[in-house]
Amino acid sequence: MSKISEIGIGMLGYAFMGKSHSHAWRDIPLFFWPPPAIPKLVVIYGRRESAVKEAMIRYGYKKYTTDWREVVKDPEVEILDNCLPNYMHKEPCIEAIENGKHVVCEKPLARDAKEAKEMYEAARKARVKTMCAFNYRFVPAVRLAKKILEEGLLGRIYHFRARYLQDWIVDPNFPLVWRLQKEYAGSGPLGDLGSHIIDLARFLVGEIAAVTGVARTFIEERPLLEDPTKRGKVTVEDAFTATVEFENGAIGTLEASRFATGKKNYNVFEINGEKGSIEFNLERLNELRVYLVEPDERKYIEGWREILVTEKVHPFIEVYWPPGHIIGWEHTFINELHHFLDCIVNDKDVAPYAATFEDGYRCCAVCDAILESSNTGRRVIVEY
Amino acid sequence: MSKISEIGIGMLGYAFMGKSHSHAWRDIPLFFWPPPAIPKLVVIYGRRESAVKEAMIRYGYKKYTTDWREVVKDPEVEILDNCLPNYMHKEPCIEAIENGKHVVCEKPLARDAKEAKEMYEAARKARVKTMCAFNYRFVPAVRLAKKILEEGLLGRIYHFRARYLQDWIVDPNFPLVWRLQKEYAGSGPLGDLGSHIIDLARFLVGEIAAVTGVARTFIEERPLLEDPTKRGKVTVEDAFTATVEFENGAIGTLEASRFATGKKNYNVFEINGEKGSIEFNLERLNELRVYLVEPDERKYIEGWREILVTEKVHPFIEVYWPPGHIIGWEHTFINELHHFLDCIVNDKDVAPYAATFEDGYRCCAVCDAILESSNTGRRVIVEY
Amino acid sequence: MSKISEIGIGMLGYAFMGKSHSHAWRDIPLFFWPPPAIPKLVVIYGRRESAVKEAMIRYGYKKYTTDWREVVKDPEVEILDNCLPNYMHKEPCIEAIENGKHVVCEKPLARDAKEAKEMYEAARKARVKTMCAFNYRFVPAVRLAKKILEEGLLGRIYHFRARYLQDWIVDPNFPLVWRLQKEYAGSGPLGDLGSHIIDLARFLVGEIAAVTGVARTFIEERPLLEDPTKRGKVTVEDAFTATVEFENGAIGTLEASRFATGKKNYNVFEINGEKGSIEFNLERLNELRVYLVEPDERKYIEGWREILVTEKVHPFIEVYWPPGHIIGWEHTFINELHHFLDCIVNDKDVAPYAATFEDGYRCCAVCDAILESSNTGRRVIVEY
Amino acid sequence: MSKISEIGIGMLGYAFMGKSHSHAWRDIPLFFWPPPAIPKLVVIYGRRESAVKEAMIRYGYKKYTTDWREVVKDPEVEILDNCLPNYMHKEPCIEAIENGKHVVCEKPLARDAKEAKEMYEAARKARVKTMCAFNYRFVPAVRLAKKILEEGLLGRIYHFRARYLQDWIVDPNFPLVWRLQKEYAGSGPLGDLGSHIIDLARFLVGEIAAVTGVARTFIEERPLLEDPTKRGKVTVEDAFTATVEFENGAIGTLEASRFATGKKNYNVFEINGEKGSIEFNLERLNELRVYLVEPDERKYIEGWREILVTEKVHPFIEVYWPPGHIIGWEHTFINELHHFLDCIVNDKDVAPYAATFEDGYRCCAVCDAILESSNTGRRVIVEY
Repeated sequence: MSKISEIGIGMLGYAFMGKSHSHAWRDIPLFFWPPPAIPKLVVIYGRRESAVKEAMIRYGYKKYTTDWREVVKDPEVEILDNCLPNYMHKEPCIEAIENGKHVVCEKPLARDAKEAKEMYEAARKARVKTMCAFNYRFVPAVRLAKKILEEGLLGRIYHFRARYLQDWIVDPNFPLVWRLQKEYAGSGPLGDLGSHIIDLARFLVGEIAAVTGVARTFIEERPLLEDPTKRGKVTVEDAFTATVEFENGAIGTLEASRFATGKKNYNVFEINGEKGSIEFNLERLNELRVYLVEPDERKYIEGWREILVTEKVHPFIEVYWPPGHIIGWEHTFINELHHFLDCIVNDKDVAPYAATFEDGYRCCAVCDAILESSNTGRRVIVEY
Repeated sequence: MSKISEIGIGMLGYAFMGKSHSHAWRDIPLFFWPPPAIPKLVVIYGRRESAVKEAMIRYGYKKYTTDWREVVKDPEVEILDNCLPNYMHKEPCIEAIENGKHVVCEKPLARDAKEAKEMYEAARKARVKTMCAFNYRFVPAVRLAKKILEEGLLGRIYHFRARYLQDWIVDPNFPLVWRLQKEYAGSGPLGDLGSHIIDLARFLVGEIAAVTGVARTFIEERPLLEDPTKRGKVTVEDAFTATVEFENGAIGTLEASRFATGKKNYNVFEINGEKGSIEFNLERLNELRVYLVEPDERKYIEGWREILVTEKVHPFIEVYWPPGHIIGWEHTFINELHHFLDCIVNDKDVAPYAATFEDGYRCCAVCDAILESSNTGRRVIVEY
Repeated sequence: MSKISEIGIGMLGYAFMGKSHSHAWRDIPLFFWPPPAIPKLVVIYGRRESAVKEAMIRYGYKKYTTDWREVVKDPEVEILDNCLPNYMHKEPCIEAIENGKHVVCEKPLARDAKEAKEMYEAARKARVKTMCAFNYRFVPAVRLAKKILEEGLLGRIYHFRARYLQDWIVDPNFPLVWRLQKEYAGSGPLGDLGSHIIDLARFLVGEIAAVTGVARTFIEERPLLEDPTKRGKVTVEDAFTATVEFENGAIGTLEASRFATGKKNYNVFEINGEKGSIEFNLERLNELRVYLVEPDERKYIEGWREILVTEKVHPFIEVYWPPGHIIGWEHTFINELHHFLDCIVNDKDVAPYAATFEDGYRCCAVCDAILESSNTGRRVIVEY
Repeated sequence: MSKISEIGIGMLGYAFMGKSHSHAWRDIPLFFWPPPAIPKLVVIYGRRESAVKEAMIRYGYKKYTTDWREVVKDPEVEILDNCLPNYMHKEPCIEAIENGKHVVCEKPLARDAKEAKEMYEAARKARVKTMCAFNYRFVPAVRLAKKILEEGLLGRIYHFRARYLQDWIVDPNFPLVWRLQKEYAGSGPLGDLGSHIIDLARFLVGEIAAVTGVARTFIEERPLLEDPTKRGKVTVEDAFTATVEFENGAIGTLEASRFATGKKNYNVFEINGEKGSIEFNLERLNELRVYLVEPDERKYIEGWREILVTEKVHPFIEVYWPPGHIIGWEHTFINELHHFLDCIVNDKDVAPYAATFEDGYRCCAVCDAILESSNTGRRVIVEY
C-alpha cells in the first residue's frame, strides 16, 4: 500500500453544519478505505473566539480564527468548506475560488438568484472544483431512486410531488433567529427546505419550466433574541405551496413549512411514471418504496416494494455495515464530501451526482420564481 | 316494538354506484336497528333492458324501467337516488324535486358550477330533503377527524394537503370511456376525484378563497369503445395540481390523477394545526393518524397516534362489529343513506354532516376556478 | 338466464356470529352473480324469544324458534348453520347431519378433540356436505398467500409464526362471560383465537407434529354476570404461548391472548421460506406483504412488497369493487358461505380451500396438545 | 475549561465489531462534549499482520500487534475492548482484569454459562469496571422504553415477545464460517442474536424463570471456507424458538433465525401490560411504538403512538442532531462506550443501564436452558 496523501481543509462555521461537515471529513478514511486523500483539518473559523476554540479541540482542527479571510488565504487550506449562514456564502466562496481553493458551499447557494449567479460565474471561470452541498443527493435511497430512473424502470414521468415539513417555529414565542430574517437568510423555508426538494426535483425528474406559488407568513412578529420583551418583524415566509411544471411535461406540487406540527424533518417525495413509482421519506432514510408494473402473469404479486437500502449492492453501503444495520442522517455528508474529495484528487466532474454551483444557481432561480408568483398571482416561467 | 314503516326507493343506474347504493339500502336495517324506516326497493332504471332486469333481481327491486321519467313520477317512490353519469344529474334531480321526491344525487353534483347552481336553486326552494352523496364524510375515521377539529384539539389550522390518486388509465390503449369526455363527465379527475378532496377540505377546514391550478392531459387520443381501431380525442384533463388558500388563512395543495401508478384509490389528506395534525388514507380507511402536542412533562411520549377506528366510541361503529373487525369502502354508503333516511323521517337537516346541494354547487365552483387558473395562468378568487 | 333455484337456511344463534352469517347469506346474490342458488332464510333459533323474534325481522328470516330441534328437523331447511357457543356445537350438528342437512359449524369445532372426533366421524359417514367455518381462509390476502405457496414461490418453508392478540378482558372487572368458562367454551383464547392460527398454520404450511406450550390465567376470579357483587372462577386460560414443529421440518411459535393491550383483532402470521416470505395482519386484511428473492441483476430492487389485494386478478375480488376500494371483515363470510353453497349445489369437495370437520378435529387435537404440554412441562407429539 | 484527561484504549479485533467500537471511541468527544476523558487509541490486535496494520492506520491507533497478550499487559492501555470471536472472550478478559484493566467485552459473554461464570467471578472480585457490550440497551428508543416501564406507564406486564431475524445463510452454499461452528461460537443464532433479545427481556421485563425451546439446524453441511469443494458439518443451530416464563408472571416467546428471508437485522420486541404496550424494531431504530390506555373521555383518540425518538427530551439525543435527523446503528456504540467511560472516570456502576458480566452470565444461562429443553423435550427452570 503506497502512502495516502493528505489534503487541507479550511472550515467556515462550527455550529450545526460545521459540526456535520467536520465529523464527515474525519470519518471518511474510516469508512472509505483507501480514501482519495486523508482530510487534514487545518483551520476553523467562527465569530465567537471561545466557541470556535472549543470547536477546534472538539472536532480536531489544528488552529482556529475569527477572521474568515485568514482561512481563504491559508496556504495549507486546499478545500474551503463554507458552512456559514446564507448571507455569508458569496464573498468567502468567491475569494476562495480566486485564491485557487476548491470550494464546497452549503445550500441554498445564496440568498437569491442574482447573488447565486455571481458565484456560479466565478466558479465557471475557475479551474478549481466547486460543489453546492445538496447532501440529500447522497442518501443511499435517493441515489437508488436515481439509478432506477436512469435505467428507465419508471418509463415516462407524469408526476413529482414533494414536501419538506418541520414544526420548530409553531410556537409564536419562538424568537426571531437569523433564519427568519430576509437580510440574513434570503427567504424562509423556501430557501432552507424548499431548495432541497427543488434540487431533488431537478436531479431526479428534470428541469423546471414554470411555477405558481403561495408564500405565507403566519406569525408576523416574534420576540427578539437579544431582548425577548421586544418583538421584531418576521421578514420571510413561514410556509409556501407551489405547483410545478417540468420541461418534460410532468407536473407536480412543492411545499415546505415550519408549521407542520408533528413533522420533524419530513422531506418526502413521490414520483409517478407510466411503468412505476417511487416514494422516499427522509425520516426513514434507509428505506425506498418502489412500485413496478408486473407482466400480466405476475400481476397478482404487484405491489409497493419497501426496500431496506442497506445491501452491498446499494449505493455507498459497501463501506458501512452489514444488511439491516441502518445509517443516519450524518452519513449523507460522509458520502458527499468523499465524492468531492474523489473529484478533486482524481480530477472528475462533480456533476451529475453532486450539485454544481450552476445547480445551486438554478435552484435559487426557481425559488425566486415561486416568490414572484406569490406576489403577482401569476404563473411564472422560470428564466435561467 | 311498534311496527317500522317502509319508504320507497327509486334508483337511477345499476352499475358501480347503483350497486353500491342498492346494497346500502338493503343493509341499513341489518346494521342500524331499529332503522328510521325500512327501505323498500321499488324500481330501478337503466338504459339496457336485459341488464337492468338482471339488476332488479340481483339487488331485490320490485320492478325496472328503461325510462327514468317513470321513476321520478312513480307514486311509490319517495326517495330518488341518482347514480347516473354526471350529464344525467340535473334533469332527473330537478324533476324529482318538483314531483316532491326526496333526492340523493351522486357527486360531482353537476358537470360545472352553472349546472349545479340550477340544481341547488331547485333544492333550495323545495321542501323535500336533498343530499349530494359525498360519501367520504361518512367514513368513521373522517368523522372522527371532524370531531377532533370541532373540539379544537388542533388549534388554528395552517395547512391542508390532499391528493386523490388512481392509475387506471395509465395504459395509453385504455379506451375512451364516458369519464374521458367533457360532454358526459364535465371534467376528468378534477370532478371525479378532486371534488371529493375539495369537499373534504371545505368540510374539515373551511371555505376556499382562492386557487391556482395546472390541468394536464397526458394522452390526448384513445381507442374508441365501439371501434378500437379508431381513436378519439380525450376532452378532459388526466390530472391536475393546485394551490389553495382558505378563508381562514390556511394554505394547501390539491391534486388528483389517474396516472399515479401504484395508487389505486389513494384519497389522502393531511391537516396541520398549531396543536396537532391529522392524516387519513382511504386505502386504510379504518385508521386515522393523529398527532397531539403534549404538555412538557409528557413530551417524551409525543408521537403520531395510529388510531384503529373500530371502537364503540367511534362514529358509526356501534352498529358494526367488535373492535378490530374492520369495515370496508361500501359501508360509507350504509352510513350515509341511513343519515339521509333519518333526516327524512325525523325532519332533520342533512347539513352539516352530509353535503347539501349547496355544498355540491360550491365544490363545482372550486373545480371551475382551478380549470380557469390553468387556462389563464392566474390565481383565481373563487366566486360562489 | 334460466331461473336460479333457492336453498333453505336454518340458523342457530343470532348474536355476533349469527348476525355475520345471516348478513353473508343475504349478500351472496348481490355480489356473486349468478349464485349457485339463492339462499332462502327459513328459520332462526335463539333462546330468548323477544331477541330471536327481533333478529328474524332484522335479518329477514321467515320464522323463528326457541327450540333448536325444530330447526334441524325443518323440512324447508337444507343447510344448518350453527353459530352457537362451543358447547352447543356437537349435538345440533350431529342431529342435523343425521337428518340429511348440510352443516356449517362455527369454530372451534368443539370444546376438545374428543367431542370434535365424534362430529368428524358423523360427518365422514354422511353424504351431506360439512364445513368448519374457519373464515380467515377466505380473506383474499390469505388465499393469495395460499396461491403463492402452492406455486412454490417461497421454496422450502423454514418458519411459521403467528399470534392472535386481543385486549377485551384486560380490565379485571370484566365479567365472567361464557367464553371464560371451560364448561361452555372448552378453552380460552386457545380455542377461540388460537384455533384460527392453528388452522392457518395447517392450511398454509402443513401438518403439525409436536408442540410445547404455556397456558396462563392472569386474573383468576371475575364478577358474575348475573350478580357483579360476587365473583366466580375463571376456568380457562387468559393467554398461551407455544413452540410448534411441523411435519415438513419447519418450526415456529404460536400465541394468543386477550391481554395484549392495544391489539384489537390482531391475527398476524409470518412465513419464511428459502426463496421468500409472507406477512399478514387481519387488522389490515386487504394487504399482504410478500418478499421474493430477486436474481442478482435485480437484487437492488429486492424488498417487501406491500400488495393491496383489491385487484381483479386477486382471489374473490372480481365480485366486489374496483381496485383500492377495500372490503371488510364481514366479507370473509360471504366468500366462505358462497363456497359452501357452490360445493353443495355443484357437488364439489369443500376441501382443500375450506376447512372440513376433519380439519376442525385436527385443530382441536393441537389445542389439546398445547394444554397438555402446559400441564406436564413436556413436548407433546400430536396424535390425530 | 480545565484540560480533559486522556484514557488509553487497547482493542482486540479489527473486523465488524473492532471497526464499530473504534469508530465509537473516536466519535465520543465530538458528540459528548466535554467527555469524561478523551479516548486515546493505543494499540489494536489482530491475527493477520497486514490487515491489523492497515486497521491501525485507518482507525487511528498508535500501534498494532499480533499478540493479544501484549495488549492486556500494555501499561498505556487502561481499557481493554474485546471484540474477538466468542471463543476468545474468556482468556483475554480475565487476564486484563487481573492486570487491572477495565474491560468491555462483546456479547455473548462466552460460549456457555460455565465459561461466562468464570468471567463473572473474575469481574466480581476485581476493582476494575467491566461491561458486557449489549449495545441495544443504548438505542435511544430502547432506553425510552425502559423509562416508560420504570415509570409504570404500562402497569403489570403480561407479555414479552421478541424475535431477532436475519437471512444471511439461507443459501445452502454459504460457507462454514466460524459462527457456524460450536467450538468457536458456542451456539448459532441463539448466542449471536438470541442473547440480545434475552438481555432486553431481562433489562425491560425482569428475570427469566423457565423456558421451553426448539433448536433446529436446517442445512447440516456447508462448503469449507478454505476449500469450497469440501463440506463440513454445521455444529450449531440455524434457528430456535422458545416459550419463556418470567419470575413476575409474564409469559412470552423468543425466536432467532438466520433463515428468515427478507429480514436483515430484524430485532423486534413487543411488551403488553395492563395499561399499555410497547413495540420496537431495530431496522427502524429511531422509532418507538407506544400504546397507552386513555381515560374514558379521551378513549376516542386512544391509539398506537409512533414516536420519532429524536427529540432533545429523549435519551442520548441532546448530543446529536435536531429533531428528525435520524441516527444509525453505529451510534449505539458511541452511547454505550461513553457510558462506560463515564463509569470509569467518575466511578459509577455500569448497572443497571449497561449489562454487567453478571448479566452476561445470566444471559448465557438462559441460552443453555433453551438448548437443554430442545434436547430433552422438557420445560427447564433456569438456574443461575
